[in-house]
Amino acid sequence: MELQSRNSCFGGEQAVYTHASDVCGVDMTFAVYLPPQASSRSVPVLWYLSGLTCTHENAMTKAGLQQHAAVYGLALVFPDTSPRGDSVADDEAYDLGQGAGFYLNATQAPWKPHFQMYDYVVKELRGLLQGALPINDSHGITGHSMGGHGALTIAMRNPTRYGSVSAFSPILNPTQSDWGRKQFSSYLGDDECTWAQHDATVLITENGWHGDILIDQGADDQFIDLLRPQAFAEAAAARRQPCVLRTHANYDHSYFFVASFGEDHVAWHAERLHGMS
Amino acid sequence: MELQSRNSCFGGEQAVYTHASDVCGVDMTFAVYLPPQASSRSVPVLWYLSGLTCTHENAMTKAGLQQHAAVYGLALVFPDTSPRGDSVADDEAYDLGQGAGFYLNATQAPWKPHFQMYDYVVKELRGLLQGALPINDSHGITGHSMGGHGALTIAMRNPTRYGSVSAFSPILNPTQSDWGRKQFSSYLGDDECTWAQHDATVLITENGWHGDILIDQGADDQFIDLLRPQAFAEAAAARRQPCVLRTHANYDHSYFFVASFGEDHVAWHAERLHGMS
Repeated sequence: MELQSRNSCFGGEQAVYTHASDVCGVDMTFAVYLPPQASSRSVPVLWYLSGLTCTHENAMTKAGLQQHAAVYGLALVFPDTSPRGDSVADDEAYDLGQGAGFYLNATQAPWKPHFQMYDYVVKELRGLLQGALPINDSHGITGHSMGGHGALTIAMRNPTRYGSVSAFSPILNPTQSDWGRKQFSSYLGDDECTWAQHDATVLITENGWHGDILIDQGADDQFIDLLRPQAFAEAAAARRQPCVLRTHANYDHSYFFVASFGEDHVAWHAERLHGMS
Repeated sequence: MELQSRNSCFGGEQAVYTHASDVCGVDMTFAVYLPPQASSRSVPVLWYLSGLTCTHENAMTKAGLQQHAAVYGLALVFPDTSPRGDSVADDEAYDLGQGAGFYLNATQAPWKPHFQMYDYVVKELRGLLQGALPINDSHGITGHSMGGHGALTIAMRNPTRYGSVSAFSPILNPTQSDWGRKQFSSYLGDDECTWAQHDATVLITENGWHGDILIDQGADDQFIDLLRPQAFAEAAAARRQPCVLRTHANYDHSYFFVASFGEDHVAWHAERLHGMS
């Protein structure tokens, strides 16, 4: 881990690191916030997965989560959304290729050698951090849009690795959406059976979640037709999945929305990860 | 209004009255709680509509709402769930006839002359109370099970009369449920077009609600298949209806569930009716 920057922030420390990723086959950059509590003990971790076009930097600078993490004593990790660089395949569209990894392991050319964001987040980066930072084994996961999709699908496929999950404006039913079908076809191929494990609505129906789930959605979200919250809402209710699904008047898809409800999410994870509310 | 009983309760007063109802054509009994604030000024009103088999008494004695109403300064009104008496039609089943009015105006024999609970709640009882008690024009409405159905459908059909709405374990899609189809057929006849205005899922799709909606549901509700929360959840999300839909692990359909989340509902209405949270 090579330190790129370090800034004091709400009594803790906001850092950016680069490291050589074996899984993705290129150097990867991520941001991590350590709250003041981490100076004296190991703290739980909240992963924040970002949306299309984002790097590690967007949420770090715009979501305002550090102030709440400092109060509740959580570390924050902000991974990138894809591998990057001249050696990495890309597409002209904003929603495919670099900046659009969809938190899956690509099986198709030209994506396969680098686009392994599922393994990167679930295994490699977690392992790297566990040895290098004052964090403990309690991990929660959240994210926005494509990152909300990542948070929900990763949590439901790895229930023993995560103690809490939430999402802001997540892509909830990508197998039935233009934010999903195009990418899954490219990354995973045309056998739609392989897509299901990356669809939160399918997973909530088949796997469910061992705890409760918090999802916030803006009613004026300009991308809501691509997110399909109605599909997940129906499936969660049909399963009797413990959850809190909130639709907020006037809010859109932006980071202003994420910031407005960020404290609720940090508090949600803190309560479930170390009983602090 | 003939006073039947009066009890001091959390610094306010819990009373039961009987009156001759023009709309229902028989004497009707209801309960009303006035918080301590009502001794010096008029207060907003929260209507609580009860479920199948209940009278005015069940929630009054088991929901524990008075303690919260006393803090938040709301009056509570608990109407009966149907007309009653030897002159009133009935059925051997618990879910039709007396105790099962479904908050509609029956158009079919033998129910029509007495089963006019929609007009009774929306118009007659409200008018009666407005002149007799220290309440103001800010009214919210909630209820449990069949009463949650009543609260949601009455609110959505009368948006100018109610400033807030919530429900506990409501019957949400009665036109597609055995808690609904049987009763609507009996009370309203076989023309299903007349049923739609008594179905919260239809109304949320067609009318929506001018504010936000709070609904709490127990995941272990023994009647959940009859309530169809998944239908409403899908419709509300598709409409982008501002709302908070919560599914709570382990809770069932009982008044223990209502009591457990009663404070949240009283606070919800208080904030929307007079800006107190």
